[in-house]
Amino acid sequence: MSFINETHDINLTSWVASANQAGTDFPIQNLPFAVFRRKDSNEEFRGGVAIGDQVLDLAVVANAGIFSAKAQEAAEAANAQALNEFMGLGQAHWSALRLALSRALREGSEHKSALEGALVAQTDVEYSMPCHIGDYTDFYTSIYHATAVGKLFRPDNPLLPNYKWVPIGYHGRSSSIDVSGQAFHRPKGQTKAPDADTPSFGPCKRLDYELELGIYLGKGNELGEQIAIENAENHVFGFCLFNDWSARDLQAWEYQPLGPFLAKNFASTVSPWIVTTEALAPYRTQWHRDSKDPQPMDYLESSHNREAGAFDIQMDVSLETQKMRDAQQAAAKLSASSFKHSYWTVAQMVTHHTVNGCNFLPGDMLGSGTQSGPEHEEAGSLLELSRGGKQSITLANGEERKFLEDGDKVIMRGWCETDGFNRIGFGSVEGTVLPAK
Amino acid sequence: MSFINETHDINLTSWVASANQAGTDFPIQNLPFAVFRRKDSNEEFRGGVAIGDQVLDLAVVANAGIFSAKAQEAAEAANAQALNEFMGLGQAHWSALRLALSRALREGSEHKSALEGALVAQTDVEYSMPCHIGDYTDFYTSIYHATAVGKLFRPDNPLLPNYKWVPIGYHGRSSSIDVSGQAFHRPKGQTKAPDADTPSFGPCKRLDYELELGIYLGKGNELGEQIAIENAENHVFGFCLFNDWSARDLQAWEYQPLGPFLAKNFASTVSPWIVTTEALAPYRTQWHRDSKDPQPMDYLESSHNREAGAFDIQMDVSLETQKMRDAQQAAAKLSASSFKHSYWTVAQMVTHHTVNGCNFLPGDMLGSGTQSGPEHEEAGSLLELSRGGKQSITLANGEERKFLEDGDKVIMRGWCETDGFNRIGFGSVEGTVLPAK
Repeated sequence: MSFINETHDINLTSWVASANQAGTDFPIQNLPFAVFRRKDSNEEFRGGVAIGDQVLDLAVVANAGIFSAKAQEAAEAANAQALNEFMGLGQAHWSALRLALSRALREGSEHKSALEGALVAQTDVEYSMPCHIGDYTDFYTSIYHATAVGKLFRPDNPLLPNYKWVPIGYHGRSSSIDVSGQAFHRPKGQTKAPDADTPSFGPCKRLDYELELGIYLGKGNELGEQIAIENAENHVFGFCLFNDWSARDLQAWEYQPLGPFLAKNFASTVSPWIVTTEALAPYRTQWHRDSKDPQPMDYLESSHNREAGAFDIQMDVSLETQKMRDAQQAAAKLSASSFKHSYWTVAQMVTHHTVNGCNFLPGDMLGSGTQSGPEHEEAGSLLELSRGGKQSITLANGEERKFLEDGDKVIMRGWCETDGFNRIGFGSVEGTVLPAK
Repeated sequence: MSFINETHDINLTSWVASANQAGTDFPIQNLPFAVFRRKDSNEEFRGGVAIGDQVLDLAVVANAGIFSAKAQEAAEAANAQALNEFMGLGQAHWSALRLALSRALREGSEHKSALEGALVAQTDVEYSMPCHIGDYTDFYTSIYHATAVGKLFRPDNPLLPNYKWVPIGYHGRSSSIDVSGQAFHRPKGQTKAPDADTPSFGPCKRLDYELELGIYLGKGNELGEQIAIENAENHVFGFCLFNDWSARDLQAWEYQPLGPFLAKNFASTVSPWIVTTEALAPYRTQWHRDSKDPQPMDYLESSHNREAGAFDIQMDVSLETQKMRDAQQAAAKLSASSFKHSYWTVAQMVTHHTVNGCNFLPGDMLGSGTQSGPEHEEAGSLLELSRGGKQSITLANGEERKFLEDGDKVIMRGWCETDGFNRIGFGSVEGTVLPAK
């Protein structure tokens, strides 16, 4: 696969011992980016790279001046409270910094002594949003999710005729996106029971999560300029885990004809770590469209997209209730799925989004939409798992859930593994439901 | 009316003579804000205030140091490439600066000599976006528009049951909003003819404008904090003219189930001038809800909102075709309406938007939705005027239009007038359609 280079080599080990332990999310083959500072400090937030159980401080790296040319420029740009400038530099800079970091962190690197002091234990840091998200668009790329949810909202018309032609997406709210650890009050709003004559007002009764990936744009495009599908991935900086919290009862009442609004914009949570597109190269996979389905229009079609446009990113979601916390029990796994099931690829999303001339800015984010797999057990939301709130699911400790209750913490994880390459992970995105105010 | 103060006095005149001429949009009672610099210069953009046919340069005002306390702080914050910081200072600062400017620009002011050099002719300046719009939400507040468009998209179900309960809104795209003068290429995309089996790809054939107001948030709110309706207007900095360009054929095919997307995000245009909420005080009017309609839920109800929550902002839209330009003919007026017809007030939009805890940041913008009045002739879009593209409208020079053609320039104006007060205006928002790329 042409995307593979020396940074992906399974034989690489790091002088940071924890990066070489089996099962770590952050071996030297990963090198994801976040923005961090020491916990409870007044330090400025700045860019960091995960290596084992440590964060490599890019402020120290930038100031050490040990890299050259593009890698040094990139490190300096990433020494900032938001990674937008670094993300806007483009593919060549991202790649140069990744290569320089990979070499500097390898067993036997001449830079070990310069960088040993640049490590901060992940347990000692706090994260901020990795970048300023100017605009956020949520797609709807799992046909299994679209069909299952469609059945609940429109029993007679679950999958609309445009679904297999148009990568359906809609604009979301950026201001209420926060980083893992977000705790938010149960939203209030208007809902209408199916048998009621009039709506009522109160706390949401059908609060849900959505298991998604967030996709960060790096280099943008000018207004009026389409990004061709062959070039689309050059604009994609990387991926994070994304929980698109949803108030299903608000959604059902408000969403026609202009789409979900208050059902979504009270909170959305991203993982601190952005795994770069380059790090994901070994886990690319073929994208195919069932021969019985419409094939994509020309502007959404490319041989590269067919051969390697999909990413096998595995994800799962767990629930930690207040009772589990009190009893010090582990969170209960609810479901697992993979982004490889997506009906549309990231390249198709990027190209579709710009085909009308719409412009991206560095740091803009795309949500993948809820990644439900083909099986019911692979559903990425409680709405699906509880069959529209009709059937409780039973957790490991005997508690039952149809939707989220106050005190519930939702934990999503993501990782990639494939023969011949090291496993890499996304860390987690966590968020907690507080009672309505 | 308690909102009236000395700055609204009809008897005030300015030492800037053009501000005293009948029919000016910018008498001393208006004092709207923009961000500007001299045309074709390398100057930094900075805040300015319109007075007659001049712009008062807030960089000069700030540096002159002639104001005190809050007014001086506000002038310094407005001496910036974007007004977000000034807008975030809040009502007391906005009001202090307005009062100081009103006094300084009055006939006989002691500050005349200090400020004469701060004037730049409007014909000599160019504008940028007045602020960074973090998030933009478009509402749908004209029931006449919602009904007329609903009839075209859903003949059997024009006005959905939620319309009279929920101030319907949806998230829009910020990155493609630009200031008056924007020219954009006709968007391309997927469309599907009603009688076709499959969609096709190409330039939009049903390109339209939407006559809207933009409403800028000033001081924001914390995530999780609702803005009560009694307090909502304190968060509203001011109003602009807004053209929400729309690709109707793209919209019809893509908009279900998650709302309009590529049909809207290729371009949107704001007027350079923001008329402050305070300047609009004399043109407030009663808001009422027909007794046969549902009355608003408690969280959307207040006596102030009933008494003075609506704004009688008059608006019209004109079309200048390439032929008119070639023949040096005036633009043809298409329709006129007023924001007083809005089914929901600005305060209701703000409160509804935050009732679930969603947060605003200074500079966020709300679109009012297309402001169509009760009569067919008052429709704020070609979709309505041409009855869904079925009936051409004939322009003054004999040309016909169902939708916009390449080279068409759309010009929107807004103004307020009422007995006992001076007329004030919004200037204009203009934008031009270029051929598809």
